[in-house]
Amino acid sequence: MRRALALCLTAFAVSVSPASAADAPPAPLTLSLQGSFFVGGRDVSSETLSTLPAYPASGTVTVDQIYVRYQVPVSPARPPLVFIHGCCLTGKTWETTPDGRMGWDEYFVRRGFPVYVIDQSWRGRSAGNVSTINAAKAGKAETGSLPPVFSVGREAAWAIFRFGPEFPKTFPGMQFPLEAQGEFWKQMVPDWSAALPTPNPTVTGLSELAKRLKSAVLVSHSQSGIYPFQTAALDRNGIRAIVAIEPAACPDPAKDDLAPYKELPILVLFGDYVDQSARWAPRLKLCRAFVAAANAAGGRAELILLPEIGIHGNSHMLMQDKNSLDIADWLAGWLDKRVPVKD
Amino acid sequence: MRRALALCLTAFAVSVSPASAADAPPAPLTLSLQGSFFVGGRDVSSETLSTLPAYPASGTVTVDQIYVRYQVPVSPARPPLVFIHGCCLTGKTWETTPDGRMGWDEYFVRRGFPVYVIDQSWRGRSAGNVSTINAAKAGKAETGSLPPVFSVGREAAWAIFRFGPEFPKTFPGMQFPLEAQGEFWKQMVPDWSAALPTPNPTVTGLSELAKRLKSAVLVSHSQSGIYPFQTAALDRNGIRAIVAIEPAACPDPAKDDLAPYKELPILVLFGDYVDQSARWAPRLKLCRAFVAAANAAGGRAELILLPEIGIHGNSHMLMQDKNSLDIADWLAGWLDKRVPVKD
Repeated sequence: MRRALALCLTAFAVSVSPASAADAPPAPLTLSLQGSFFVGGRDVSSETLSTLPAYPASGTVTVDQIYVRYQVPVSPARPPLVFIHGCCLTGKTWETTPDGRMGWDEYFVRRGFPVYVIDQSWRGRSAGNVSTINAAKAGKAETGSLPPVFSVGREAAWAIFRFGPEFPKTFPGMQFPLEAQGEFWKQMVPDWSAALPTPNPTVTGLSELAKRLKSAVLVSHSQSGIYPFQTAALDRNGIRAIVAIEPAACPDPAKDDLAPYKELPILVLFGDYVDQSARWAPRLKLCRAFVAAANAAGGRAELILLPEIGIHGNSHMLMQDKNSLDIADWLAGWLDKRVPVKD
Repeated sequence: MRRALALCLTAFAVSVSPASAADAPPAPLTLSLQGSFFVGGRDVSSETLSTLPAYPASGTVTVDQIYVRYQVPVSPARPPLVFIHGCCLTGKTWETTPDGRMGWDEYFVRRGFPVYVIDQSWRGRSAGNVSTINAAKAGKAETGSLPPVFSVGREAAWAIFRFGPEFPKTFPGMQFPLEAQGEFWKQMVPDWSAALPTPNPTVTGLSELAKRLKSAVLVSHSQSGIYPFQTAALDRNGIRAIVAIEPAACPDPAKDDLAPYKELPILVLFGDYVDQSARWAPRLKLCRAFVAAANAAGGRAELILLPEIGIHGNSHMLMQDKNSLDIADWLAGWLDKRVPVKD
């Protein structure tokens, strides 16, 4: 009876994720370690933390830090991966997909990589500073000083994420699980990055984290695409390789110093329909120029367009597309080849 | 060489948490399932999602949903626990402590409980709505309509969390790891709950989650102390028991209907120094009155003050105090006794 109950409880756990019935549960996962911590952060004194009587307006808070959650497999034999999400999203990007399939975070742990998933500065579990809102609310500052915080509605997100040319049309063969789009829209959060300096404070946190990990592969997405490059420009220490998934920008060979990328394995990865996107086609072009220039300057960069290697239909959210684990499998193979752990 | 490297990588992983050197790593943890998803949420159309040219002001977003991350041990033989954080914090509350020790989340998984950790509505990875900020910024609304979002500075948090009578004095024998307080302040985030209705939208999400899990123990903290009671009042289905850790409020026997709590195992748990706190002493008193009234009305409620059972020095953040796992052990025992899984 107790065993039947145990099976029941497992079944209940499986049933709570949105569309789990289709796949049998995976084999158990054994971890040597897991946990979470913060990196970075600076103390800020404010006189406008609150307009509520119950909470003082004056005090010290810490902002700019990045939340990090990690899992380490038993006998990890591969370098740690640090996953950095993009615009309007959080570390959830890399977790269970909207339609209930395994996230890249768990997949790469099962493949033997220690995995670190962050929330950018001022996003998700990484605190921002609301003092400017309260200053305006209290009449101590003009509304012009309110932060340029934004949310992206699904209608605009649709084309940005290349689900289709415009909402609600879809590209033929497009792999994002639109039947579960409601679960995806729930992942999107307000974005404060326009209120922050350049480089984004996440970069300082990434540098500290890479140095702690001593041999980290920084895996970025979209808005955070430039961050690993900025981190390497800040300090090469601890950065083993860069994987830029659908980066919004690569370094500009016409303006940026390419010395930080010498001998650094770099992968820039794009999905499908890029040529059909007025937003993404120029970005792909710049990244191609970067890769060529970086290699001419002694780098080890590659740009892969998934359709060119026979993987079709991928949106901007390729880590959540229906073939996400096929891509993760390919990426694990790339890492094993290009970022080997020496015997 | 490879094995040496594997040991090295594990050691690096251990070393990245703030103060991990003191304890040997725990035995490996095997999970049958893990993942994350959202519950609840409602679509909102807005004309003020943004004031930036790059992102349209008009669109549809989803807010009020709660982020849920779960882990299920192999052959779980105990009911699922849903952990709900309090003011100005996120689900991080239940994770690795500021001084790098195992969080309650992992501890209870190791004790055979499926564990679900949420971010409240409009907190952490659960999106809020910034439209009112942009409306004021765009001159479309008065500053009075700006949201009453607040942050709590450490000077005020100190006494609220009963680290001491006032910042920076400490109570004698107080168990919070103050040598790592910097890591704790990094956990604190802006709190939008004053902008939200009552009950907080988290309650609707909890009700849906409890019904999916079919037999959940709702474990709250502080600000969220009233939520499991509100959830039970909304719908008893799926709620197996309530554990209120240092609740800011219990139902008021003078005003609230106690019928929802009939036959429901309830634990209200407080730490130390409550009598020395002008904030917490009245709250303890109300909770004692609730427990007595609930039991008179057919309930199964208990209130435990940790010093009365020989556990001393606990702050408001008892799940992070140095003896946090002793308390977790005690709580697991309470659950086994009061919330048995029938053979």
